[in-house]
Amino acid sequence: MQFKVSKEFLEQVTALIESKNDRDLELLLTDLHHADIAEILDELDFDDATHIFKILDSEKTAEILLELDEDLRENILSRLSSKEIAEELDELETNDAADIIAELSQQIKEEVISELQDVEHAKDIVDLLRYDEDTAGGIMHKELVKVNENWNVLTCVKEMRIQAENISRVHSIYVVDDDERLKGRLSLKDLLTTSTKTPIKDIYIRKLNFAKVDDEDVEVARTMQKYDLEAIPVVDELGRLVGRITIDDILDVIKDEADKDYQLAAGISQDVEADDSILELTRARLPWLVLALLGGFITVRVLGLFEGAMEEHGKLFFFTPLVAAMAGNVGVQSSAIIVQGLANNTLSGSTFNRLIKEITLSLLNGVILASILFVGGHFLLDLELVEGMIVSGALISVIIIASLIGTFIPLLLDKFGVDPALATGPFITTSNDICGILIYFSIAKAVLGF
Amino acid sequence: MQFKVSKEFLEQVTALIESKNDRDLELLLTDLHHADIAEILDELDFDDATHIFKILDSEKTAEILLELDEDLRENILSRLSSKEIAEELDELETNDAADIIAELSQQIKEEVISELQDVEHAKDIVDLLRYDEDTAGGIMHKELVKVNENWNVLTCVKEMRIQAENISRVHSIYVVDDDERLKGRLSLKDLLTTSTKTPIKDIYIRKLNFAKVDDEDVEVARTMQKYDLEAIPVVDELGRLVGRITIDDILDVIKDEADKDYQLAAGISQDVEADDSILELTRARLPWLVLALLGGFITVRVLGLFEGAMEEHGKLFFFTPLVAAMAGNVGVQSSAIIVQGLANNTLSGSTFNRLIKEITLSLLNGVILASILFVGGHFLLDLELVEGMIVSGALISVIIIASLIGTFIPLLLDKFGVDPALATGPFITTSNDICGILIYFSIAKAVLGF
Repeated sequence: MQFKVSKEFLEQVTALIESKNDRDLELLLTDLHHADIAEILDELDFDDATHIFKILDSEKTAEILLELDEDLRENILSRLSSKEIAEELDELETNDAADIIAELSQQIKEEVISELQDVEHAKDIVDLLRYDEDTAGGIMHKELVKVNENWNVLTCVKEMRIQAENISRVHSIYVVDDDERLKGRLSLKDLLTTSTKTPIKDIYIRKLNFAKVDDEDVEVARTMQKYDLEAIPVVDELGRLVGRITIDDILDVIKDEADKDYQLAAGISQDVEADDSILELTRARLPWLVLALLGGFITVRVLGLFEGAMEEHGKLFFFTPLVAAMAGNVGVQSSAIIVQGLANNTLSGSTFNRLIKEITLSLLNGVILASILFVGGHFLLDLELVEGMIVSGALISVIIIASLIGTFIPLLLDKFGVDPALATGPFITTSNDICGILIYFSIAKAVLGF
Repeated sequence: MQFKVSKEFLEQVTALIESKNDRDLELLLTDLHHADIAEILDELDFDDATHIFKILDSEKTAEILLELDEDLRENILSRLSSKEIAEELDELETNDAADIIAELSQQIKEEVISELQDVEHAKDIVDLLRYDEDTAGGIMHKELVKVNENWNVLTCVKEMRIQAENISRVHSIYVVDDDERLKGRLSLKDLLTTSTKTPIKDIYIRKLNFAKVDDEDVEVARTMQKYDLEAIPVVDELGRLVGRITIDDILDVIKDEADKDYQLAAGISQDVEADDSILELTRARLPWLVLALLGGFITVRVLGLFEGAMEEHGKLFFFTPLVAAMAGNVGVQSSAIIVQGLANNTLSGSTFNRLIKEITLSLLNGVILASILFVGGHFLLDLELVEGMIVSGALISVIIIASLIGTFIPLLLDKFGVDPALATGPFITTSNDICGILIYFSIAKAVLGF
């Protein structure tokens, strides 16, 4: 049932554009879901995409805008007048409209806002622009159904009908007092089974989860997941109901957060896609590589300290990449488990117990790996017995230290309010490379005395 | 509004357990959400947790069971009789019950199923056990509201009322024919505004998204996200409506998939948590470390090939960890971007263009990094001019090759139906270490001729 953009379909579309056959083009696209049309536009060049965008009606194009790749959206918006952009935004939910406005330049932003037709809608959008995008305020929308606690059931039902008109999914009816402060929620069932004269005060449910505008979006996501909520009301500093967050907004938060953690672990500053420009990709990747390079400078210096080993024990230098690689891998594993535990809130127990556990774990892994290295070193790498013992012994120490660093650093970052996801990836591999090599050669020097 | 387990609260709980004051204990917990109680139990030892579990009523404990850490759930279930387990399951939705049953041993599984009281519910659960857990069938539940296309509005409303009793969120009403084949869906609005004698046939919406039981769960998640669906019906091979997937099920799929990719990138076989046992954690981590170690063997051998350089150009060996680290980091960056593009379905264009782009990108990064290395090498690492040129030149080649490997391998894996996420992490760093060192010394040898 899912639509797939085929090569044939794209050829058909471009042929129709070339032959300027707009009527058939519209006919071809008319039954498609806006998300599918966005997918098609993403595959076309900017001119063709804009062409199609202009022949479709604004109810559809507004939704399409939301689904487009950022580059293409920016390009299309730059070809529309402020009035045309405002027309698109009039069709959208408040938070979607605010998201698009936030991407515009200051001047166009103001022009577009002044062109918005629906004054209430415009007010709501402007309200939303005030909030930081990583907060509950930044992801909420203004569309919701609310009733006053002083109304009776009859007034309430009438009012609800009017409000619900513009809302695709009602989920919950919120109850507020005369000052707009959130008091509770109403179950549709109670509303329908109670006499029409009953005051709302008597039937509403006082216990409910809510978020504050300044709550972090990931916190809200966690609450909604934990309590299995499909929507959560948002209140301001005075407890007034100012918006609502639904589960589809949360889906995006979770996805973005996971993507960000993944990219950080891979040494990519957040928010790039494979299809972004080379400049954007470089900006996201280069800083981490520079960090790794500077770390590399230190390893060179560290190795220089042990230059004396080169004459008699040159073979030791063959093992530096192996030791560094093991230190890096172990560190990344340890830190990833901690980062994920912190993100999912599944870490229990004390830091001390965690370090003890990590030491046990890496001792176990270390002994197994060192044994493999000892045997393999003897038979495959022509190591003498004493050399084999040095390398294997060093491996155990390196693994333990690397896993402790990997465990400790994300916990430390978290304690100081820094995103622990920063710790996995180049940061941990680089510091572990340095420590690993230092430990390895120190042990060798202590035994062989070069 | 979110509950946080505090140390004081836990102390209060354990004190009440010790003093065998069950009444106060129940009173203390009675107003808490089941997810909060699960969080408390996760913090207690098994005995205390089981104690609390037994004094709460089964409506609450059933929900708690779902939220517990796997270890604790297993432990508690092992202390319950089959009849007691069945009582818990009778309270749960079909898919939640099926998930718990799937964790039991074959013998207990059969006993529990035979003890289930509600026959329809039991049938539904057994049905669900047939499906692979990674498919639409594996994540769907049986609870849904369906009506026959041959009914009229009046019958339909009556039937719906009965069915909706057991369903927490209706979302959609599905329309089936006499053979239970899915025909479409009904909007609640149409149902309420049409005369009671109108046949359903005349008013239902024929266009709707659905999933097949064998569809992969990540595919279903993608469809629901793309089309912004809150629920999707699932049909069997004959097109019969057999279940429904709601957005909260999908949330879990997305979270699990992201967690898995993250762990693979960090060199952890999927499905472990920080609080798992040491043995489980070792099993997840050791294989990757062994792989890295064997890769390390190869780097030792490769370096051995260039032993001749040691006498006159020993300094070259100081740079091997630096070169290996850069190769590894670049490879992980490139592969992560591809893996994420594949997962999010945002890769467009041909493989050839992608490789060209990657080469341009890494040429840019490479030249910048090589310049830093050349200057830094001269002033900080006492490199002679020719050595500096060798190391810097090698760095550019290594970065380009590493990024090509990082781009190509996940694309290749994906083409052969292997999870591309396998490619990021130890696999890529290890192969890039080897290639990087080989390239570096080959260039050095070509220039210096040792």
